[in-house]
Amino acid sequence: MKFVVFEGLDGAGKSTLIEALKTKILARGESVTLTREPGGTPLGDEIREMLLRTDAEAPCPRAELLLYEAGRAHHVDTVIEPARSRGEWVICDRFYASTVAFQVGGRGLDAADIDWLNRYAVNGCEPDLWILLDLTTTEAKKRMAGRNLDRFESEKEDFHERVRQSYLQLAKSQKEKWLVLDAAKSKEQLTKELFHYFEGRKWL
Amino acid sequence: MKFVVFEGLDGAGKSTLIEALKTKILARGESVTLTREPGGTPLGDEIREMLLRTDAEAPCPRAELLLYEAGRAHHVDTVIEPARSRGEWVICDRFYASTVAFQVGGRGLDAADIDWLNRYAVNGCEPDLWILLDLTTTEAKKRMAGRNLDRFESEKEDFHERVRQSYLQLAKSQKEKWLVLDAAKSKEQLTKELFHYFEGRKWL
Repeated sequence: MKFVVFEGLDGAGKSTLIEALKTKILARGESVTLTREPGGTPLGDEIREMLLRTDAEAPCPRAELLLYEAGRAHHVDTVIEPARSRGEWVICDRFYASTVAFQVGGRGLDAADIDWLNRYAVNGCEPDLWILLDLTTTEAKKRMAGRNLDRFESEKEDFHERVRQSYLQLAKSQKEKWLVLDAAKSKEQLTKELFHYFEGRKWL
Repeated sequence: MKFVVFEGLDGAGKSTLIEALKTKILARGESVTLTREPGGTPLGDEIREMLLRTDAEAPCPRAELLLYEAGRAHHVDTVIEPARSRGEWVICDRFYASTVAFQVGGRGLDAADIDWLNRYAVNGCEPDLWILLDLTTTEAKKRMAGRNLDRFESEKEDFHERVRQSYLQLAKSQKEKWLVLDAAKSKEQLTKELFHYFEGRKWL
């Protein structure tokens, strides 16, 4: 019963892989909670709505960050920790590494501040594994064409490149906690590599 | 052109005194921005609404605190600092001392965490003066009878006593920054004492 987080740029294929992993877990007769950030709770969804809409005054950068962290704290306390206590797997679509990648890497906010805030929000609730679906920004952009873009998704390409590099740096700094997959590969190939990794750890 | 904050339990008479000070400032031909926390901005009002309503799942304590701080950061950046840059007085109904009094004093959250968060949210924007309208909890309760109470206001009396003591302690620890008024006095007397204090500092 592990706590696993999927990270990566939008369009990297997180949803497909999450679905495959969920199916595999359920087929073993084990329980799983699927959740996501920002969001994951009614309060979190309200906050997510506040943050992604394009029609209102944007929160100042510190407010934006604090709102994410509020949603995260509530998510940890009311969804992730309770699911773990019930002995379930937890699969989360984005977690605090997203805040590091988007806010420090992307926006250039202070890394020490974000580190403090992330630690405060998660309150010791650490994933067993982070899975990064790494995608070049050119490919990500191609995949997002035609979708309705929210405030983040419509950011410029160099923003996305900084986010990507920030993810790669996080993965490099804590190798035993991160699995980096090349999101340009086929769905079948990615699923195979993911399951192989889990089997190697005797998790599946 | 000073930045002045009024603090105290609900029912202490902050609004009356704020109105009196505002009138006095305007009569001198100076400009003043009146604002309040939580709230003070459209984003802040939404957050305030989230925090005070009684019909939804309450945010976990860390989330509650982070939401207050998000509203505060946005309030500082979009209302208080701009008003000060325009050379206006700023009168704020509650500011970060409320968070210390209610969350540390009232709820027993960690003082160092709240201190960090307050400093992060206000980003160096410090009031010139805090005015505490000190009221015994018995008297506060009497004054609030008949009002519709939100989640905080309906807390028990010992909660309010802890909040009050926490305010008094803050005022004691930074005497030159705090004016403590006895809210049991008449409106006229309080206004007189307030103006006297300002005149003594040559602010009015």
